[in-house]
Formats: sequence, structure tokens, C-alpha cells
Amino acid sequence: MSVFDRNDDLGDAGHEQVVFCQDRASGLRAIIAIYSTALGPALGGTRFYPYASEADALTDVLRLSRAMAYKAACAGVALGGGKAVILGDPARDKSEELLRAYGRFVQSLGGRYYTACDVGTSVPDMDVMASESVFVTGRSPEAGGAGDSAVLTAYGVFQAMRAAATHTWGEPTLRGRRVAVEGVGKVGLHLVEHLLADGAAVVVSDVMPAAVERARALAPEVESASVEVLPTVDADVFAPCALGGSVDEALVSAVQSRVVCGAANNQLTSPSIAGALAARGVLFVPDYVANAGGLIQVGDEALHAGSGGFSFERAEAAASGIYDTVLEVLATAEREQTTPAAAADRIAERRMAEAESDPAGSRGLRLPGGTR
Amino acid sequence: MSVFDRNDDLGDAGHEQVVFCQDRASGLRAIIAIYSTALGPALGGTRFYPYASEADALTDVLRLSRAMAYKAACAGVALGGGKAVILGDPARDKSEELLRAYGRFVQSLGGRYYTACDVGTSVPDMDVMASESVFVTGRSPEAGGAGDSAVLTAYGVFQAMRAAATHTWGEPTLRGRRVAVEGVGKVGLHLVEHLLADGAAVVVSDVMPAAVERARALAPEVESASVEVLPTVDADVFAPCALGGSVDEALVSAVQSRVVCGAANNQLTSPSIAGALAARGVLFVPDYVANAGGLIQVGDEALHAGSGGFSFERAEAAASGIYDTVLEVLATAEREQTTPAAAADRIAERRMAEAESDPAGSRGLRLPGGTR
Repeated sequence: MSVFDRNDDLGDAGHEQVVFCQDRASGLRAIIAIYSTALGPALGGTRFYPYASEADALTDVLRLSRAMAYKAACAGVALGGGKAVILGDPARDKSEELLRAYGRFVQSLGGRYYTACDVGTSVPDMDVMASESVFVTGRSPEAGGAGDSAVLTAYGVFQAMRAAATHTWGEPTLRGRRVAVEGVGKVGLHLVEHLLADGAAVVVSDVMPAAVERARALAPEVESASVEVLPTVDADVFAPCALGGSVDEALVSAVQSRVVCGAANNQLTSPSIAGALAARGVLFVPDYVANAGGLIQVGDEALHAGSGGFSFERAEAAASGIYDTVLEVLATAEREQTTPAAAADRIAERRMAEAESDPAGSRGLRLPGGTR
Repeated sequence: MSVFDRNDDLGDAGHEQVVFCQDRASGLRAIIAIYSTALGPALGGTRFYPYASEADALTDVLRLSRAMAYKAACAGVALGGGKAVILGDPARDKSEELLRAYGRFVQSLGGRYYTACDVGTSVPDMDVMASESVFVTGRSPEAGGAGDSAVLTAYGVFQAMRAAATHTWGEPTLRGRRVAVEGVGKVGLHLVEHLLADGAAVVVSDVMPAAVERARALAPEVESASVEVLPTVDADVFAPCALGGSVDEALVSAVQSRVVCGAANNQLTSPSIAGALAARGVLFVPDYVANAGGLIQVGDEALHAGSGGFSFERAEAAASGIYDTVLEVLATAEREQTTPAAAADRIAERRMAEAESDPAGSRGLRLPGGTR
């Protein structure tokens, strides 16, 4: 368990700051990890989870904060990457006192880290934290927050899919294509709406029958399949929008689509799956590039907290840029003869390294109250 | 290697905040540990040391920051306890760029932690850090700093010794007593001056012959002994002012003094030595109580940074209070039938716990820029 370890094989430069926080009165134990502030303040959700050990919590927060940095850098937004974990069982340990104590720690970092919702934390929790800190996003719309980030997450995935269509079939539309959507929770359902509006045929699956019913109720032509069968149906695009890790070796062998592009985090069970998909001629749009719309949505709340607040229209326009980002990633992959996943990592790493080494000091983050 | 572990047997409540800091451009790797801010901002030096491992560095900074919290709490100053370590070889790795990057991290904590000199860092280093942060003490007098904290460290040890004299012989003076001073570096030399002025006889030792000569040059009656012999000379007080760990089982058997009171940190090789000294009828003034004058000196710089700056007279008056603190520790030890070392710990723990649980929220630290 080392905080400072880097993984040079991954091009990983190591974390900028990792903060262990404890409040004895409320029982709070939390770790806030800031991978990079080279491009702007680090934004990432706070996960509240009963980790088996402190080492497990540290491993998780180091991994997640790094992923947020890459997501923001590749999306081209003026944000760094961070993440936080609260060690405990949210059902048993969450209290207003604990959330407020956590909010004070977020505040004490002076804007280097902005929090948001994640597993185990909710919009009302953000409102409580916001009573102690101005560096809280994902608040309720009544409190000036960006609200449900599923909206622009789905919109961004749709833009990514349009870019993949341009790259594959020469047209920025899914019109006449058939898309298999795995998981029709909040994000998947919004994605189906965009696809229907664009003229695509849609087939869905979900472990929850009620979710499938909601999707089928959107339009009579929406089809459904079992979770097991969906990857094998004859479709042009397979869209993983359920839990992570659904793209494994079995799926690589079974999938009938030319494009894999969805909203789930960490879709590949291992980095080598990217190469296996490429070898089969399947275009994989890296998950963190496709699903950056949610980050863009709450990022707008963070970046404009002191200047007029969240604007859905501005955030939506920024999320439209995912179309161009995906084209750039795919062009880079072809030019550098690598997979789109590796190309996205390289783009992100170059942007962070350039910002860090900028001799003019035009880094995205200014420390509030600092003397520089 | 766990950050959140507590040691309940020691009454240890665990650390409030531990911050791992990395700056890729300068190679900085540092850990800032804040044990408590219950009584005020955490003050403690920055140690620059080539630790064998990150785990060793963490262990050291957790231990040292806890000790600073106890020292400040027992001394009754409005400061919490913290400490920092920079991982590296100061001769090889120290650079202006690295010190400035470190200063920015100190600044980013918004005043929860104030730094000062420690092993491997110097007053000029503090001036460099201060170009990036207002939360730096131990700066040069030209920069408004408190200067050399050896001055009030020695003065405070002298006050502690006067209190031990009152407790043991009924008079607040060392007049007519003989004091064996082990180590006559900066602090020990100042202590000898105070003792001579008070009318004590002094015998000194030091591993450096030049240091012994400087002490003997203060007055013709100053005697000297070898480092090995000093503990066995016929003296009323033995004053460890060299490195830590000089009070071991051998010294307990050999020492001829009724009082042990000096400036060194961590004088006892193990907590059980306190009991062994008590069993032999030797009064041990806890090291961190006796040597708090240096903390009081740089603490004055920290606490008045925004209001007129450091005042030697005010700091000296505060350091005079070590006389009363030692009497309180000794009275508590008698009342609670424990050693002075354990009594000092209990006083410190009670003060921190009371401040933490204060329902009126009158805690010493207000987070700058916070919303509470």
C-alpha cells in the first residue's frame, strides 16, 4: 500500500495529492485523492462504501481519481481529476454530522477538489455538504445544482456513437442502424430516446424487467432480448450501459456489431480486450471518452459556481464536443497504429504533461488565497 | 502501514488529516500530518530526510505530529499539532523549485498547518517556502520571523528546572545547586548562561570538544566531564540537552541527581523508564513540557502573522508559563498517583478532547474561506 507509487508502464505520473481525513466526533474516515490539477480543479464524486480495509479504499480512490483525470483531459474540459471515498456503510454510518465534517475537509482544500455524487452518496447528501463547502457539485437544482447528470451522459454517448458512425459508415447518424443497448436504467433510457429520435432501431436488455418495460413503452418498435442473448443479436452497435466489466473475452467472440460504444464505466475486463476487439475489426469507443457528458454537466456547475452558476445550454454545447473528441481519438489511433483506448490515454497524458510543463505558468488551477 | 490506526492504549485518538503531496516537476514527495486542530492551527517543523521507505516516512510523521499536539496542548498555547516530512536527501534533492512547490501545498491547506524548521531544513529554506505561503514560521528575523528558537527553548527549560526545584527543595531557584548539562550546543549553551546567572554550579559534557570549550569560556567555574562520566557525577540536576534517547536503564541506575530535566526530545528510550526513575526517587520533568519554549517562540510568529507579527517579549512571557505548567504536571502526577510523563499526556488529552467536544464550537481553528 503505497501512495506515491507510479505505474510507468501505463504512462502514469503518480498522484499530486492524497488526503486522509478523520473526524473523531462523527466517526468520519475519508480519503480524497487528487491525481492532477494541471488542467483545472480536480472534480470527482465521493463514494461511500464499506471497504474491507483501508488499503482497499486507498487502491480504489487512487484508481478512480486517475480515471477522472484522464476523462477530463481527453474531453478537453478545464478540469483536473480527483475522487474521494468515505470508509463505512452508508446505510449505517451516514449522518448529517459526518457529511458536514466531510464538507469541511473539502472546503479546507480551497478548491483544489470539487466533489459530486457517486455510489453511496446522493443529491441530498451534496446539499448537506454544500452547507460547509462551496466546492460541491451535483447539488439539487433548487440549490443551484446541475441536477441529474444522466441527462448529458446519455447525450454524450449518443454523440460518441454518431462519431463512430461517421468513422465506420461515413455518416454522422444512426438512421437505419440497429443498436443493442445493454442496461436501460437512467442513462440507457435517455440514450434509447436519442436513438429513436435519430431513426435507429433499438433492442434492449436489463436485469430488471421493469426497466425493460419502461424502454419498450417509449415506442412500439423497441425490441428486447435477455441479458445473455443481447450481445449476439444482429446489430450494428453494441452499447454497454449497465455495470462495468461487461466486455470480456466471451463478448469479443460473440458480438455481432461493428461498433461497441456505451455509457458504462470500465467496460473492458482487462486492457488487452481493446486489442482483441481491434483484431476482430470491432471499433471500440473508449468508455471514458463516450461517457464524459456527466462530468461535463457537473463540471459546468463547478467551473461557474462563482459566475452565474450552472447553465444546461452551455453544458449541452460542451457535451456536443464529444463528437469531435471521438473523431480525434479514432484518427490518433489510426495515425499512431494503436487502439482507440490507448490513443485516448495518450491524448490525455500529453495534455496534462503540456499543462504541467508550461513555463508561462498558465495552469488551470490557481490556489485561492495563495501568493503566487 | 495504516494512516487511520489509533493506539487506544496510549489514549491516542488518531490523526485528523494526513496529506500526501507530490510535485512531478520538482520531484517533491512530502507527507503533512495534522494530529489535531482542536486547540488551534497545527504547528510543526518540516523534516527533510532520506527515508528508506514511504512507510518509514509515514511512521515518523505520524509519531512526530502527535508529539507536537501533546506539547502544544500541555503548554496551554492555542495551537494544534502537526509535522511534515519531505522524502529525499536534502544535500542532493533540495532545490528552490521543490521548496516552492512544497510551500504551495502548505498554502493550499489554508492555515490548518503552519510549518517551521526541523532536521534537514533551515531558516533560509523557510524564507523560500514563505514566498509561496503565508503559513510559514521560523523565517529569518529580516523577513519578520521569530528567528532562532533555541533562545526560548533554553529559557523554558530553565523555568521547568526552577519549578522542579520548588517541588523538590521548596525554592524556585537553582542557587547553590549543581547541574550536569549533557550537550552544550545552541540550547545547552543558553541554558548554562541562565544557570550561571541564577547562581548554580555547572558541569558540562559534549561529544564536540569545541562545544565544551565554548561553555567553559562562559565562566571560569564551569567544569566539564566526559560524556560517559557526566551522568554519574554528584549533581542535583541532570539535564539531557543532546540527542534523544539518553535516558535509558543504565542511566537510571547510574544517575546521582534528584531531578532529570533537559531540552532533548524523546529523552526516554521507552515509556517504562519513567516508572523506573520514579521508583528510584528521581523526579523526571517530561521532555516535551520542559522544551516547549521553542514551540511557543515560533507559535507567536504563527498566531500573530496577521496582527503585528512576532514579539519576543510576548513569547518570552508565554514561555515563563512553563514554570506553572510543570508545577501543574507534578501536582497532577501526585494527585492521580502516576508519573509526571503520564500526567502530562493526560492533561494534553483532556484539553484536546474538551476542545473537540465543546458544543459552543469555540475551537481554536476557523477554516479560512469556510462557510461555517
